[in-house]
This record gives sequence, C-alpha cells and structure tokens, in this order.
Amino acid sequence: MRTAEEYRAKLKAMRPNVYMNGQLIGRDDPVLAGGVNTIAETFDLARDPAHADLMTAVSHLTGKRINRFCHIHQSPEDLLKKQEMTRFCCRLVGGCIQRCMGVDALNALSVVTKNMDEQLGTQYHQNFLKYLTQYQEEDWVGNCAQTDVKGDRSLRPHQQADPDLYLRVVEKRADGIIVRGAKAHNTIAPYADEIIVVPTRMMTEKDADWAVAFAMPADAPGITQVIRVTNYRRREQLQSPLTRYGSADSITVFDDVFVPWERVFMCGEYPFAGQLASLFATYHRHSYTGCKPAITDVLMGATALVAEYNGIEKAPHVRDALAELVATAELVYGTGIAAAVKSVKASSGTQVPDIVFTNVARYHAGINVYREHEILAEIAGGLPATLPPEGDFYNPETGGYMAKYIMRKQGISAENQHRCFRMISDLLCSAHAGVVQVAGIHGGGSPIMERIAITGQYDLESKKQLAKYLAGIEE
Amino acid sequence: MRTAEEYRAKLKAMRPNVYMNGQLIGRDDPVLAGGVNTIAETFDLARDPAHADLMTAVSHLTGKRINRFCHIHQSPEDLLKKQEMTRFCCRLVGGCIQRCMGVDALNALSVVTKNMDEQLGTQYHQNFLKYLTQYQEEDWVGNCAQTDVKGDRSLRPHQQADPDLYLRVVEKRADGIIVRGAKAHNTIAPYADEIIVVPTRMMTEKDADWAVAFAMPADAPGITQVIRVTNYRRREQLQSPLTRYGSADSITVFDDVFVPWERVFMCGEYPFAGQLASLFATYHRHSYTGCKPAITDVLMGATALVAEYNGIEKAPHVRDALAELVATAELVYGTGIAAAVKSVKASSGTQVPDIVFTNVARYHAGINVYREHEILAEIAGGLPATLPPEGDFYNPETGGYMAKYIMRKQGISAENQHRCFRMISDLLCSAHAGVVQVAGIHGGGSPIMERIAITGQYDLESKKQLAKYLAGIEE
Amino acid sequence: MRTAEEYRAKLKAMRPNVYMNGQLIGRDDPVLAGGVNTIAETFDLARDPAHADLMTAVSHLTGKRINRFCHIHQSPEDLLKKQEMTRFCCRLVGGCIQRCMGVDALNALSVVTKNMDEQLGTQYHQNFLKYLTQYQEEDWVGNCAQTDVKGDRSLRPHQQADPDLYLRVVEKRADGIIVRGAKAHNTIAPYADEIIVVPTRMMTEKDADWAVAFAMPADAPGITQVIRVTNYRRREQLQSPLTRYGSADSITVFDDVFVPWERVFMCGEYPFAGQLASLFATYHRHSYTGCKPAITDVLMGATALVAEYNGIEKAPHVRDALAELVATAELVYGTGIAAAVKSVKASSGTQVPDIVFTNVARYHAGINVYREHEILAEIAGGLPATLPPEGDFYNPETGGYMAKYIMRKQGISAENQHRCFRMISDLLCSAHAGVVQVAGIHGGGSPIMERIAITGQYDLESKKQLAKYLAGIEE
Amino acid sequence: MRTAEEYRAKLKAMRPNVYMNGQLIGRDDPVLAGGVNTIAETFDLARDPAHADLMTAVSHLTGKRINRFCHIHQSPEDLLKKQEMTRFCCRLVGGCIQRCMGVDALNALSVVTKNMDEQLGTQYHQNFLKYLTQYQEEDWVGNCAQTDVKGDRSLRPHQQADPDLYLRVVEKRADGIIVRGAKAHNTIAPYADEIIVVPTRMMTEKDADWAVAFAMPADAPGITQVIRVTNYRRREQLQSPLTRYGSADSITVFDDVFVPWERVFMCGEYPFAGQLASLFATYHRHSYTGCKPAITDVLMGATALVAEYNGIEKAPHVRDALAELVATAELVYGTGIAAAVKSVKASSGTQVPDIVFTNVARYHAGINVYREHEILAEIAGGLPATLPPEGDFYNPETGGYMAKYIMRKQGISAENQHRCFRMISDLLCSAHAGVVQVAGIHGGGSPIMERIAITGQYDLESKKQLAKYLAGIEE
Repeated sequence: MRTAEEYRAKLKAMRPNVYMNGQLIGRDDPVLAGGVNTIAETFDLARDPAHADLMTAVSHLTGKRINRFCHIHQSPEDLLKKQEMTRFCCRLVGGCIQRCMGVDALNALSVVTKNMDEQLGTQYHQNFLKYLTQYQEEDWVGNCAQTDVKGDRSLRPHQQADPDLYLRVVEKRADGIIVRGAKAHNTIAPYADEIIVVPTRMMTEKDADWAVAFAMPADAPGITQVIRVTNYRRREQLQSPLTRYGSADSITVFDDVFVPWERVFMCGEYPFAGQLASLFATYHRHSYTGCKPAITDVLMGATALVAEYNGIEKAPHVRDALAELVATAELVYGTGIAAAVKSVKASSGTQVPDIVFTNVARYHAGINVYREHEILAEIAGGLPATLPPEGDFYNPETGGYMAKYIMRKQGISAENQHRCFRMISDLLCSAHAGVVQVAGIHGGGSPIMERIAITGQYDLESKKQLAKYLAGIEE
Repeated sequence: MRTAEEYRAKLKAMRPNVYMNGQLIGRDDPVLAGGVNTIAETFDLARDPAHADLMTAVSHLTGKRINRFCHIHQSPEDLLKKQEMTRFCCRLVGGCIQRCMGVDALNALSVVTKNMDEQLGTQYHQNFLKYLTQYQEEDWVGNCAQTDVKGDRSLRPHQQADPDLYLRVVEKRADGIIVRGAKAHNTIAPYADEIIVVPTRMMTEKDADWAVAFAMPADAPGITQVIRVTNYRRREQLQSPLTRYGSADSITVFDDVFVPWERVFMCGEYPFAGQLASLFATYHRHSYTGCKPAITDVLMGATALVAEYNGIEKAPHVRDALAELVATAELVYGTGIAAAVKSVKASSGTQVPDIVFTNVARYHAGINVYREHEILAEIAGGLPATLPPEGDFYNPETGGYMAKYIMRKQGISAENQHRCFRMISDLLCSAHAGVVQVAGIHGGGSPIMERIAITGQYDLESKKQLAKYLAGIEE
Repeated sequence: MRTAEEYRAKLKAMRPNVYMNGQLIGRDDPVLAGGVNTIAETFDLARDPAHADLMTAVSHLTGKRINRFCHIHQSPEDLLKKQEMTRFCCRLVGGCIQRCMGVDALNALSVVTKNMDEQLGTQYHQNFLKYLTQYQEEDWVGNCAQTDVKGDRSLRPHQQADPDLYLRVVEKRADGIIVRGAKAHNTIAPYADEIIVVPTRMMTEKDADWAVAFAMPADAPGITQVIRVTNYRRREQLQSPLTRYGSADSITVFDDVFVPWERVFMCGEYPFAGQLASLFATYHRHSYTGCKPAITDVLMGATALVAEYNGIEKAPHVRDALAELVATAELVYGTGIAAAVKSVKASSGTQVPDIVFTNVARYHAGINVYREHEILAEIAGGLPATLPPEGDFYNPETGGYMAKYIMRKQGISAENQHRCFRMISDLLCSAHAGVVQVAGIHGGGSPIMERIAITGQYDLESKKQLAKYLAGIEE
Repeated sequence: MRTAEEYRAKLKAMRPNVYMNGQLIGRDDPVLAGGVNTIAETFDLARDPAHADLMTAVSHLTGKRINRFCHIHQSPEDLLKKQEMTRFCCRLVGGCIQRCMGVDALNALSVVTKNMDEQLGTQYHQNFLKYLTQYQEEDWVGNCAQTDVKGDRSLRPHQQADPDLYLRVVEKRADGIIVRGAKAHNTIAPYADEIIVVPTRMMTEKDADWAVAFAMPADAPGITQVIRVTNYRRREQLQSPLTRYGSADSITVFDDVFVPWERVFMCGEYPFAGQLASLFATYHRHSYTGCKPAITDVLMGATALVAEYNGIEKAPHVRDALAELVATAELVYGTGIAAAVKSVKASSGTQVPDIVFTNVARYHAGINVYREHEILAEIAGGLPATLPPEGDFYNPETGGYMAKYIMRKQGISAENQHRCFRMISDLLCSAHAGVVQVAGIHGGGSPIMERIAITGQYDLESKKQLAKYLAGIEE
C-alpha cells in the first residue's frame, strides 16, 4: 500500500493537463491541496494499525492486504465494512472522502465484464482482472467518469446534433480504440491516478458506438481536464481541520484518446450499457449510505454545539431538530446496512447490495440535504451569514470589540465562540456549502432517477396482487 | 401448539367481563369476530408446514417447537424472523396482526426480571420463567397493558388527585398483591387469554407503589373490560378477505384484583420501572418495523391497483406516489433489519434490538401514516368518499346504473371496479381508517416520545466532539 | 327569502327519486336530516337581522334583498363577503355549508352565457337571467353537477366505449333537448331544489355533443339519485351541535331527461366548455378559501381544547402545532382575500376572483388537510381511537369506571372530558372524518388539477424574461 | 429627492469608520459597490416618471412628493404600494432592495412615540416628526439596528455578565444621552446615511436602561462598523445585471456615543420597548411579503429557463416544481395583500398591517426558502456545482471545449447556455446563496419567533369556544 507521500509525488510527476480559471496548473498547485489532503487521509489511515480491519481488506485475487478502496466486495461483511469505512473517513474530513467512486466503478465492472464474457464470449473480464491486479498493486486512486455532457436531454446519443455530446468510439484499431467526448462532474479527477469511464445510461442498437467502458491514466495524451475547485475560505490565523480539506470537479475532455484493448471493458455491447450504468449507480448509492450520514453527523454536531454555545441546548425545538437529524442519518445508514445484509452474489463472485434498499436510502438522503442545512441555520441564528471576516478579529482596532461582543454562554472563550461560528459560516454560507447541497441532491443520481429506479426495480406486481386478494378480486 | 378452534373454544368458556356500548357480551359475540379471526390466523399459519420456519421457533426453555409469538428472541436471526413474520401476517389480514404485543412484553420482562434479580436478589426471573413455560405450553395470546389513564399529564403518579389514575399496589399480602387502576388502549384484550401489565413510565421513589408488573388471565375476578370495536363496514354481498378482520381496544379496569406472587414480576422496584417501560417500547417499536411496512404494502397495492383501473398507471405523478410509498415502507423495514443486525444480548440471553435504529424506524413510520393515506386518496380520486353503499349495486332499480357508470378501463368488470373502490372506501373513509391513522401515530409511542427516546439514547456527545475537532476547538 | 320550514316542506313534496343502500327514500327521511339541517341554517341566518349584511345581498336584477347564496357578485366587496359568509357558516355547522356550489355555478354561468351570446349571437344569457330571477325569487338551493363519471381517464368523451360515460345531448328537439349520462360526487343533490349541470372539462369539436349546460329540478322525470350519506355517529344521550349536521353525495343519473330550451345554457358550443368548467372551478375554489379555514378553525379549536384538558397547553410542541394550523387557515383565507381584492369584472358585470390567487389558496388548503388531522391526532393522543361507545358511560355497571378514569385536569367535569374526546373521536375516527379528508383534497379540484391551473394561468414567461435579464441573456 | 450621484457623493464624504477583514475602508471602496448600486436604484427609479406612482408618495407632513422609502403609510393603499414597490425593486436587483428597513423603523416609531406621548406625556413624537421631516427632506437611507448581540440567550439584559451585551444608556445628560453596546446583522449600515436604533425585545423594569431608541448618522463619533460583504463572484468578461448588486452587514459598535435629546425616541420607557420591537418586526415582516416573492420570482424564472435550456420544460416534474414555486410566492404575496387590506390606523394616523396575516405570510416565506433553492437545484442538475470558472471559457486552450460541450437544446447559443448556468451557479453555489438562505430564514424574525407571534396574537380563545360549542360543552 502506498504512503500519502508516494501518492503526492506521483501526482507531481504527472503531465500537466489540468486547467483552472484560464491557467494550466500542476497537480501540486496549492489550489488542489484540499482535495489532495482528503485522499492522503485514505493512505494514512490504511497504514494505521488501529484502523486496519476497517480500512484494508485481503485481495481475492492476490491474497495480499490492500486498501479497502481497491477491493472487490466478496461478502455482506465487506459491504458493511465499506459503508462503515466511508462514514468514518467522511467524518474525519468533514465531508466527502471522494475515493469511493473508483472502487464503486471497479465493483460494477467486475460484475458486468463477467456477464458479458459469459453471454457473449468476450474477454473483458480477463482484461479487467489484469487491470484490477495492477490497480490494487499500485494502490491507485480512481475517478469514475460516468455522466456525459448529454446535449439535448430529449434526444438519445445517436440523435444529438453533435455526436460527441456523448463520449463515443470514433475508431477501432488492432491495438485499441480511439474515443472522443467529454464527461462532466468528475470529482477527484485532477488528483486521481486513473479515470475509469462507464456509460451513463442504457443504449439502443443505434447507440452502440456510445456503449464503451475503459480506464486510462488521468494525464494520458488527449485528455484535458477543466476544473472547478471547491475549498472553504482560506484562513490566515484560525486554522482548523475542516478547512484543510476540499475537492475539485473536472469536465474531462477526451480528444481522440487512444485506449489499448487491455484497458477496454466494453466496446459496442449496447445491451450491457444500461446494466453497467445502473450497477455503478447502485454501488455508488450504497457508498452514499455511508457518506451522507457522516455529513449529517457534521451538521448535527455543529447544531448541538451551537445550541450549547447559545445556551439553548435544552429547548424542545433544539431537541426536535436534533432528533430529525438523527433520524435522517440513521434511516439512511440503517437501510444501507439492510442493503448489505440482503445483498446477493454475482456470478463473478462480487457481492451486490440490494438495489431497492440502496435506492431508498440514497433517495432519503437526497431529499433531506437542504432540510438538514435549514435545521442548522434555524438553530445557529443569523450570525453565520453576518460574521465579519477573520481579519477583524485580529485587527487591534476592532479585535477587542469582536472578542467582547461575540461572548455568549459564560465559560466559553471568545476564540471558541469564534471558531464555532466561523465553522458554521463555512458550512452554511460558502460556495462549498452550495456545492455540498447540490452534490447531496444529484451525486450518484438525482431523486427523480431514484424514484424511477425504485419503481422500476420494486415488485409492485405482488403488491397489486395483495390488494386484489384483500378486495376479493379474481380475474 | 393450539389450533384456532381450541383458541376460540377457550374464549367462549371465559367469564364474561367485556362490555360494549352498554351491554355485557360474550367473547363469542359476532362483534368480536374481526379480532378473533385475526388472531386465529396466527394459529393456522403456525401449523402450516409451508410457514413453519417463519411462524415457529424452538423454545430456549423446553426445546419444543412453539409459535414464534411466544418466543424469547435468542439471536439477531430471531429478531429478523419476528420482523419478517410480522410483515407477512399483517399483509394477510390487511392490517395489524395484534399478537405481537404479548411477545414484546415477554421479551422485555425476560431482560428486566433478570436484571432485578442480579442487582437486587429478587426472584422475579424465576417467576417469569415458570410463567413463560406455561405461556409457551398453552400457546397463549397475551395483551400487554402498559398505558395508564394518567389523569393530569403534568403530574407524577403519586401527585394525582386520585391515586388510581395510575395502576398501583393497594395491598401486599403473604400470597400476593392487590392492585387497582385502569389501563387504556389495550388492543386485543377482549380476545386475549392473558393480560400482562407493565409500567408506563419511569418512576421516582415516591411512585414505588405504582412500579408494578404482573400477568393475569383476562377474565380474572375484579377485571372489567370496556371496549371499542373497530371493524370495517359489514358487507352483505361483496365479501372480501379484508372485511373478515378487525380489532377491539379495551379500557381494562382492575378493581382490587388479587395477583398471586408467582405471577408478579415487579412490585415496588421503582428504579427498574422506566427500564421495563422503555424496553417493552423498544420491542414493540421493533414490531412496528414489520407491521407498518405491511400496512404501507396494502395502501401501495391499492394505489397501484386503482391507478391501473383509472387508466393512469404510467403517469409520472403515479410513479412518484408509488416511489414515495416504497421508500417509506423500505426505510422502515430496512432500518428495522439494521436494528436486528446490530442487536445486543442481555444478561438473560435475550436479544435486544438496537434502540436508535428501532426508534428512528418507528418514528419514520409514525410521521408518514397520514401522508400515506393522503397518497392513496390523491390517486384514487373522490369516489371512495361518495361511493353509494353496497345495496344500491344489488337493487334492481339502480344496479344497472351502478354497473354502467362505474366502468373505467376496458376489460375490468364492473364488479371488480366495484370491489376495488369499495375496498379503498373502507381504507380511507371508514371509522377503521381513522383508527389506523391514530394508531399509526401513537401505537407503541407517539412521535414526540420517539424524539425524546432518540435524543436520549443517541451519542450526541460524540457528534459535538466531532464538531469541535473540525472547528479546531480545544478545551 | 324562504324560511327553513318552507324549504323542508318543499323537499317533502318532491318526487321520491333518491335511493340509499337499496331503498327508495323520501327527502324527509331522517337519514338526510344532517344535510337538511345544514342547509336550513342558511335560511335561518339570512333572516336574522344580526347577520343581514353578511348573509344577504341586493339582487342586481330585481333590487330585492336576497340570500347571498343566490347572488351574482358585483364587486370585490361581494366576493369578500361571500368568503366571510362561507367561513362563518361553516364554523357554525362544524363543516361544509354546502350551499356554495349553487351560487358558484350561477356566477360562472352568468359570465360564460354572456360571452357566448356576444361572440356567437346565442340567447343563453337571456335564458340564464330569466332562470336566475326565478332562482332568487324562490330562494332555491342548487347543486352543481359537474364531474362526469368519466370512464377511461385516458380517453376523451367521444372516444369512450360507452358514450354515456360523459353526460351528453342525445337529441335536440324544437322545445328542448334530451340528455343522458351521470354526474358523480353531487354533494347536496338529494336535498337541493335544483341541479345545475356544467361540463367537467374542455371539449374538442368531436366532443360537441358533450358540451352542455342546463338546470333542472332535482326530482325531474328521468333523474335518479343514488346516494351515500355521511353523518357522524348517532348519539343517544350526549347530544351536541356537531352531530346535528351531515351531508350526502349523489351519483345523479340522467336517463333521457328532457330539458326545455329556456333551461339550457350551453348546447354544443364546445369552445366554451372549458371556459365554463374552469370558471365554475375558480368560483368554487374561491369558496374553499372560506370553508377550508373554517374546518381548520374547528380542528384548531379542538386541538387547543384537548391540549388544555390534557394539561399541556403551554408545551412548545402544542404552540407549534397551533401555529401551523393558524398559518394554514390564514394563508388560505388571506390569499382568498387577495383573490377578491384583485378580482376583475367580466362583460356580464360579474366579478371574477383572481385565478392565480384563488388556485394557490385552494391548493394550499388541499395539500394540508391530512396534515391538519394529523396535528389534532398528535395532540389528542390515542383516546379518540379507543374511546368506548357512549353506552358504556351510561351503563350503571361501567359508568362509574368511565367517569373515574376519564378524569384529567382538575376542574373539568367527567362529562366535559367525555364531550371533548367524543367530538374528537368523531373528527378523527369516523367515516365522516375520512370523507372530510378526501373532500378536502379533491373537492373543487384535486391538487394536480390546481398545479395545472396554476402553471397554465401564471405569467411564467415574464419570470423567464426576468431570469434572462438578470443573466444578461439577449436573444 | 436626491439623485444617485448625490447619494454616492455623500457616502464618499463620510468619516471612515467601516472595517473589513482588518482594513479601514472608505465608503467608496469597490467592495461596497454591490450594496451601493442596489440603493442607487431606489433613487433612479423614484425619479423615473414611469414609476412615480409606485416609487413616490406625498408626505403627510409637508405635502411634498417624496421617495416612498421615506413615507409614513397613511392608508391600506400605501401599504399595498409599499408591498408592490418592494417586489418590483427586488426583482430588478435580483435580491434584497435593502432600503425597506429604514422606512419600517420610521413607521414603527411614528406609532409608538405617539403612544408614549399620549400615555406618559413625553415629547418623543415631536422629536420624531422633526427628525422625519429632515429624513424626508434629505431623502436619507436608513439602517435599522435592532438585534443586540444578546450574550447568553437565557438571560435578560440586566442579568448579563457584561451589561453591554445589550445596547444601553450609560449616562443621561442635559443635552443628550450616552449609549454603549453593539447591534448585529445591520444590513446596509456601511452605506446608509442614518442608523436608527430600536430595542430587540420586551423589557422589564430592571431592564429600563436598555429600553432605548434613537437615530444617529452612520459615521457619528463613537460608532464603528465591522462588516461582512456579500457579493457574487466578480466577473471578468461575462457581465450581467445580477452581479452588479450585493450587500453588506455590519456589527455596529456604539462606544459611548452621544445622542442629543432631539434624536432620542425612547429612553427608559420599558413598557413600550416590546411594543416598538414588535411593531418594527411587523412592518419589516410585511416588507418581506414583497421581497420574498421577488426572490422566488428570480428562482422561478431561473428554474423555468434552465428547464427550457435542458429541453425538459414540458415534463410533469418541472410543472410541479414551478407550481410549487408559484404557490409559495403568491401565498406570501396574497396574504401580504390581506394584511394591507385588513390594516388598522394607529392614533398617530399611521396605517398598521394586520399582525396575523403579516406573520403567517413571513413565516411561510421563511420555512420555504431552503426548499425553493432545492427546487432550482433539482431542475438545474449538477452543473451549477461543477461549472468551471469563467476564465476557462475564454482561454484559447479550453474555450473551444467549453463552447462545444455546454451545448444543449439547439438554437441556444453557447454563450447563453453559459450565462444561464453561471447565474444559477451564483444563485445556488456561492457564499451569497448561503447568505440569502440564512437571511430568508432569520431576516425580520426567525420562524420560531413568528410561531410565538402568531399564537400570541391570534384569537385562539374564540376557536376553543367554537370547539366547546360544537361539542356541547357548557361551563
């Protein structure tokens, strides 16, 4: 398993192909530090014996101990541990741990490449296993690039005015394929080792050129990343763990990128495109049953803390607010546990979480994320929106006023009051907060997609039969 | 294990002490048939080899196969099966299976009597085990009488103007105790064999006389039941399974009832009153993670069916309605699974479901029950409220009109359309519907009680520490 | 203006054509007393000088003082008064005052018949004014029969397998027309003088035969009413105003009914069918801005009362519950006021409430009705569901127990405690409660219909332009 | 009436006492431009003849035409126009117009100073009228400084460890008073002419020193402002109206400020402190019935626009989303109209909006603000969170990719797609968005304060009487 330093060193050595606000930047640019710090924790924790059971697993391929973020789940216990690990890591960084998308893509590929090989006689699963061995060996960090830019939402890939609006195969060669297009919302891509591409939807026969999956280094020739970075406001004096972390999202452009066949996992097998898209979504939504409760933990902790500092921690409306946050966190987490317990084994040996439990859990998280922020805002009051910047607390002209007038409950120092409200201001009134909200809704699939998944997968027919039986309807 | 017939025969032989609307009635009175039919299913199903694994268990006391409704849970699997059995049975009767409260009370007593004996040197656990052996042997049906009538809600038991407003010990004798008071909301009591009394809340030292638990036959001298029966409207022609079932609730009056010591499980040990109250609530709320999803199944099935009959089953708003119902059912059920998986073993050997998962699941069910009815009402339209009574469909003067004008989607017979809307009219616009709604909120504990339980049990301190860590607050 | 006695006498003299549960009944049948008592109040109140300003108006046709339930609104003040009168009357009967639908239909007809005459040269407005004069003179009670039974919801009227599934003109004769079909959900019809038929939706050219509006006496030849009655449970001893009132809904069958031309207000003018349907809906939804707040008043009063009796009236969760009920009532009522203030005058001189304010107000009422019942249920606790029937409070064997154990707050008599919970049991756990819930959603148009009306009528284009302006988008 | 230029010139000439992030800045600092631009619109619009009726009024003191933001409302029409003006202006700047707080404070003072004079024989109303005359003459912009920093929320002013945690009178002199303390959340203060101080709550006799109201120039000796500025991200190329505007909030410190008696409007009259606090809140909440619908207009327009650009404007879930936004906007606005229509005249001649309608309208706005952002996020998808910064659209290396891959619906230029998503990214994923959310909840009073105001002001007793009447309860 790599060290965080090895990970950082590799990033620094990669070909610069990341653009930010008009500049080409290196992967060691300080603006990326928030994201890199986040991923670095996954290496440090895995090497910490105290967390070995949670953070590592034994590879079913090599028998070696690997980072769990590289592992193919072999049992319900593996899924339970991935969920628990995710919540644990996300708490530590106060937000998304980000490395889940790689392992989610790998698990989905492990199942679908096997299915294709069994049904079509292809060799994708062998490709995949070889790739996986290297991935585990090198302890890679993978981005999963799923969402195409999609152009006109009412048209299929092959109907778009510009065929590149969904990523596609433009040429098949003896040694590999050439792909063109762009994938959006690629969190982690600028500081990932690998980009794993999977389809974003089901495909029809006419969309066969768009049914493609593969993996490439994030700095491979022809790949350009245009990114948006989301960090909390930089602090000059009032350092805190929360503000060490951040993230970045890329629109990843594939401008006639060559992919050798051994890194291709689907190429034209359109009937399996939807399966792969859906299965990655399932794994990723199951990851959300770990990460979203952690984000609720952070908001809940902040709510409880500010209530204490405001001197209202015993008020019934605070209790109700906290109960609502607990309920949201634990319904999502609990139903994620059920998804693991009721998981099934695919023919590849990979464990697949129950699709209904997974979707309802992710759905519940998604429809509550704005409400959770609202709860914190209600209890915290208006100060997070009007708190003067840090500098005023350290300016001799105004620092005394700030220290005097931020005082609330006796026994809490002005600095700690300041720290509390500074953090909540970041959690509620920052660009990052907005990104957490939007990602909380759409990450891994929007609520409407989950409603479709839920009703599509659920055995509604048996419920109708139940109603007919109770009504005495015979047909 | 008893047969349903033996159960009915025993009921018939019991001393008449049940009053309904001013009349003393026998336990074989047809008005009670809905409830008796419901319980009868639990005997029939347990004897059906197809359901043996689900409906029966092996007694940890005697090693004999017993009805699972008499079983002390020994493992997470037992809890999972109880939950699954509950959903299964409730679907079959289209509502509450009712027999859960007895087994929930027994499990709570098994834990707390052991705790008392260990800490106080009492003999309650021996009493309990002897009683349990007989209970399993006789395959009894037990009511749990927990909720006192409670008088002024702002006063403790010993502060009430009338000390009987909480059930209490009025005399201790060599051979037993004399109790007086009344317990409310005792579903199943008029057709139960036994009444198991447990405290409704925590007690202070001054409330010691009110800290009492015991079991007595439902027709024991001094016990009077005043009941309210809830059946669906009687049908003359259009028989259906749904309308075979019903329930009844009793205000059970204990007018100086003598309870022999071997049937006493707590008498004055006030520090354990709250523990027993809370533990029964936990078991009972865990039962709700099985029954409430079943009630959602019924409403969901009716919603899907009427959407099909109305010809709108593909409409997006119907899909969204169904997705919301699925989410409610499976969040509750899934979190109930988590409660079983994360259960712990008490010193008595009894398995106790996780209290936080249990409470958030029950809470989620409770705050959604009105909404679930609303969804069915939205999709069904106004007809459930205005459907003429059955007689008009069979009156030659009007039957033709009814058959002609109830027609909707082609291919569905008028009778089946009628059956569908008659059932939904019962589910939405009957006294029974209102009872299901109120019971859905308050049964096993009101949402506000669960909010208190949730925040009381949850490790909020660790969440505050998390917030402090992220904010950089050191104290 | 008529007296209540004259109204009752007229009902008694009408041709029996009302069927209930297989029986042909007279309009003086006690089962209809709840509805008749309700309407009777509208006569009594109008003759009470204390309420003259609110309950009566001056006819714009005759200059005579008439019941406001017969009046064509001439000004915003008229609309304000109708709204206020509706809330006032509904409070008095604890529910729907029912007579609004007639006046709402008349107002819609006054506008659309004028529009048709102006644009098509028809004579409908003259027909209408003559009819209106008589209606005001006789002080009639009118049912508006709008909703067809509608068959397959995915087909238009002319596409239905049975053309009668929407009411239609089957023959035009020199002296009148013959109509056939059935109208559903006709509240008040069995104790109305007149039935006023209007289309239920917009119509295409092929649906011209279904574009028909007219009025007929409720007992006219060929008309058969099949009804469902909704009363509260009959009381033997504990009489109360609430239980004096009730309602009934009819499926009104028109089996080749002859309508003379002077009573025809539309016959084939399909482009105006949607306008009339929508305008009746607008007036009726504006009536809901008066009645629904009154129903909230009743639920709110019951919530406040039971909180006091339970001794928890100062608890924060009770305050929040009441605030939510107040907000619901007054948002609906306030926005209804805005609809009157921002009303416009049609070419007929009739005042038409603002369609957007009207719809959002009705919509808000509709999506909150289940929630309002839920609030009362939360505060009242479980007793409304388990309260033994009245008889047990008067049976000497059990009456003492009931009186003893219903006691709560000191100083409130057992009878008043009983009255309070008996009423709430009726409001929550009766067939009537379910009907109020379903009618609260669907009466005057379902939430989905209002969402369509809102977005259809609202000037969304200007809001898009606003967004473009702010974004700097020029096209 | 002043010109915008005169307003800016005056700002520039004021004594620098504004600190931002450790720096003392001038009022012409570009960082304040967003706020100053906003206020400047209120001068420009008032001088535009097209808006004269809405934007100006005739002073009841001088008979001169003045900016309506300086006017004391004399009639329901004045209140209706203020509400309409507020919505109109807020739309134009895409957010809070900010100048309302001054006029709201003046109106409240006009009423309460009169009440004090009438009841106590003080001279505050004369002081006030003289001040008002000058205020109107100079066409001032006023901040209302109400919220004290408040220290420990469980203690009254006089109980605080530091008596300055509520602003107080430290000395009374012949010529005036000396005040000390700090007021928080003072939007507009750094670019206002005047600061009008009113109490934040009701006061007891022991709090008399804290019962103080007065007005002072914003740069008066002893006043220091420590501010937080909220602007949208600065644009280099893609200018738009939205990003011209912004705001700033101040913690305004009064360090022994001398206030001459003619500018004092309350000094020790503690029984009137709560009245003044509440009345300012009422006026300000009524302003919210104008501004919040405008903010909804912006979010609604953005939602409709992005739905069109995404090609999904006809989808039912988009229609439902828009209907929900319309309902929120128009319920708040409509109920605000009702508050104006049902307003009452105070003894000073000032028109006071209905307190219940005002509060429920503001409450409804407050509890929906997060939900409104959620709706826009649902329809817009993930791009607002991951849209690369502006620079990448203009960098030759990446601009082509951006233009190619942002394309959606045919016929919409890449730049307009970019403009649309850039704006939505600002509306959802910026620090400003978080401030709008928090201000939407807490501005003018938090939901919990409104629930208290609603239940405190509402005639709940009459609703209880209604319940008793219907239940037949006589006492």
